[in-house]
Amino acid sequence: MSYPTCLFCKIVGGTIPATIVHQDDHVIAFEDINPQAPTHVLVIPRTHIASLDTLGDGDHETVGRVLHRAAEIARSRGLMPDGYRVVLNCGPAAGQTVYHIHAHLLGGRGFGWPPG
Amino acid sequence: MSYPTCLFCKIVGGTIPATIVHQDDHVIAFEDINPQAPTHVLVIPRTHIASLDTLGDGDHETVGRVLHRAAEIARSRGLMPDGYRVVLNCGPAAGQTVYHIHAHLLGGRGFGWPPG
Repeated sequence: MSYPTCLFCKIVGGTIPATIVHQDDHVIAFEDINPQAPTHVLVIPRTHIASLDTLGDGDHETVGRVLHRAAEIARSRGLMPDGYRVVLNCGPAAGQTVYHIHAHLLGGRGFGWPPG
Repeated sequence: MSYPTCLFCKIVGGTIPATIVHQDDHVIAFEDINPQAPTHVLVIPRTHIASLDTLGDGDHETVGRVLHRAAEIARSRGLMPDGYRVVLNCGPAAGQTVYHIHAHLLGGRGFGWPPG
């Protein structure tokens, strides 16, 4: 399902440009336009899910694929064995700005704690 | 599958105590012992998966359930509509200390960017 007003659905549909680093039948990944680490890629499902808060029982496979793909991109970027952080923001307190669920894959440096 | 030397497998098995906030056939959630926010819960699969880096194609449903459960705990804690952050650390650069995959659910305050 695609939402006409959703920025990331437009990237999925190819009507807004992005630096795509991976795409398959289920998942697209592209460079964050405001990177916070040497690697900062957004991994999203093609289908529109607004956020973690709107996940349903039928979405497990989809969001599992998103995390698995993030891990595969991390390996392809040489982020292992050092490691990387994956972050999902939900709602304004966490800074979610686009309401199409996305995993931030961040790597290439060390990460402090707490995570923001 | 359970690993005898894994701290979180021991929590799953009940041989190490934790403040459990949810358990079902697939997922367990418990309070982080070093909380970084008013809500800081760890959500893990019962089955042993070491990290994002060891995910396989057969694990999508399992890790999808972990994220979905994190979202449901967030709602039950009243973290919406303000929001919350979910973080998965993989490897030493991100600060992963227990090699049983876990999602940090953090909420009850605002979160800065970058996430660590």
